[in-house]
Amino acid sequence: MNEFQLIRKYFLKLSKNNLSALGLSDDVFFDKSKQLVISVDTYVEGIHFFNFKKPELVIKKIIRSSISDLICKGVKPKYYFISGSGQNKDFSSNNLIKIVKSLKEEQNKFGILLCGGDTVFSKKLSFTITSVGFSNNIIKRNNAKINDDIYVTGNLGDSFVGLSILKKKIKVNRYLKDYFENKYYLPELQTSFSKKLLNLANTSIDISDGLIADLEKLIKLQKLSYNIYIDKIPISPKLNSLISLNKFKKKNFISHGDDYQILFTADSSKSRIINKTAKSLRIKISKIGKICSNRQKSQIFDKNGVKTTIRDKGYYHRF
Amino acid sequence: MNEFQLIRKYFLKLSKNNLSALGLSDDVFFDKSKQLVISVDTYVEGIHFFNFKKPELVIKKIIRSSISDLICKGVKPKYYFISGSGQNKDFSSNNLIKIVKSLKEEQNKFGILLCGGDTVFSKKLSFTITSVGFSNNIIKRNNAKINDDIYVTGNLGDSFVGLSILKKKIKVNRYLKDYFENKYYLPELQTSFSKKLLNLANTSIDISDGLIADLEKLIKLQKLSYNIYIDKIPISPKLNSLISLNKFKKKNFISHGDDYQILFTADSSKSRIINKTAKSLRIKISKIGKICSNRQKSQIFDKNGVKTTIRDKGYYHRF
Repeated sequence: MNEFQLIRKYFLKLSKNNLSALGLSDDVFFDKSKQLVISVDTYVEGIHFFNFKKPELVIKKIIRSSISDLICKGVKPKYYFISGSGQNKDFSSNNLIKIVKSLKEEQNKFGILLCGGDTVFSKKLSFTITSVGFSNNIIKRNNAKINDDIYVTGNLGDSFVGLSILKKKIKVNRYLKDYFENKYYLPELQTSFSKKLLNLANTSIDISDGLIADLEKLIKLQKLSYNIYIDKIPISPKLNSLISLNKFKKKNFISHGDDYQILFTADSSKSRIINKTAKSLRIKISKIGKICSNRQKSQIFDKNGVKTTIRDKGYYHRF
Repeated sequence: MNEFQLIRKYFLKLSKNNLSALGLSDDVFFDKSKQLVISVDTYVEGIHFFNFKKPELVIKKIIRSSISDLICKGVKPKYYFISGSGQNKDFSSNNLIKIVKSLKEEQNKFGILLCGGDTVFSKKLSFTITSVGFSNNIIKRNNAKINDDIYVTGNLGDSFVGLSILKKKIKVNRYLKDYFENKYYLPELQTSFSKKLLNLANTSIDISDGLIADLEKLIKLQKLSYNIYIDKIPISPKLNSLISLNKFKKKNFISHGDDYQILFTADSSKSRIINKTAKSLRIKISKIGKICSNRQKSQIFDKNGVKTTIRDKGYYHRF
């Protein structure tokens, strides 16, 4: 049973209420009457971040991962809380100085404020980040319409290459190593586009677990399917070169986690305004597929228009 | 360096703002303009709860511990989030059923609602609970006045005896074992008195780490001291019998953690109304000492009025 099923089966009945909150079917909580949006996530060493050798980068990665949950819903994050569990060595003065410096930089970059949290002793290092924002409305999951276009912001896959380099599964030169590792630790968040989302998207999610895994979560409670076109999926020139040079397959690089781009669907009538918005914000927004009825199965097409499969669709939080 | 010093030194400058929030000098966050109160706490197996053999009790204990942070400030908790990190065996179907049943009972008892959270894999079991409430005002720490009386609700020490029994450090009969272990797992929270606090108390804290440890945290940023009278500290008839029977010393039982009673100070003019409130709510509220200027050192007096010391003042979250 994966996390989604586990949560649905056991915890959903605890969250029933009449406050137009989203219950547990979304990954943010929204109380419309209080205009309050909250996201809580836990990050464990070895699972959500590779190791803690670079605390100044890890802390940025997990803060961005947490506020990304709000940003992908059209909500500006305002407050955050950190709970750290670890050993003395994890929270040495040296590491704390690096962590505080990084947090200060993130606060300035994203306009957020540390509001609390605690530090406890544990043999296993983990962080729980609570992010808080205020908004009249948010974009919900499971609100796609048949024939919606499927879009993704930015590029996918760089972060996965960065992690593969850290794990010594891919070898590249020093310059590319720095480039890809930075993409793993410092995902770019689409803050400026976030504000426009409420007027454009029907449903949205951030790609934290992998394109296909997150797409399937996005429409999980709907009787819908998707068509996705591999050649439409945006990758960086550097990843494109790496793939060509090594005769890798593109489809093996575009559905792993840690991208933190926004995956959304929109009515086809919005196509022009979405392109215009992308241009005016100078960001990349790519149409990568279509939402279909569930009379057909979900399908992924290769560059020749032939049906293909992606072995590893991403991370489903399996227990 | 203890947690307090560590947080002050490194993190305080990250929380500066002009929103009349409390920064990190309190253990709840308060945004007056949004009337929003948030508390975030992490509970680790072996530190904050003994073990996970009784998940149905552990989950109640940590939920109560978390919402206690709001209740002791005069705030009614409304929402909570759970992040659990553990192994498959911790979150087995059997355990999840017990956990959900307990959460349902706590939701009914305290009028709270589960709003989210997640479950991740970790070798070490821990939970982070985020509690949310709404209030126009809260009682802050570090707001005691010279000559304030020091009060505590309920009884202290039962919970510590319960933990000592679980650790097999104290042996009692089956009946007392059940009584004290229940006090450890199911601390009573002063929800009805909480509503009255804003009109009565100058400053308040819940006793989670131990009476003296928490009292010292309560006035840490003030140039004040305290006088505490051991014989005034309220204990249950059962703990009183246990102490008499075994010739234990009372002072060794009243400043350990997990009591979750409210420790507060109030102007001496409030004495009558506090007694009246206690009677009308049918709860115990005991005057146990006085706030003094820092021209004298803090002092603890035994039943004969002789100065004494308490070896173990409680838990300071040492790293």
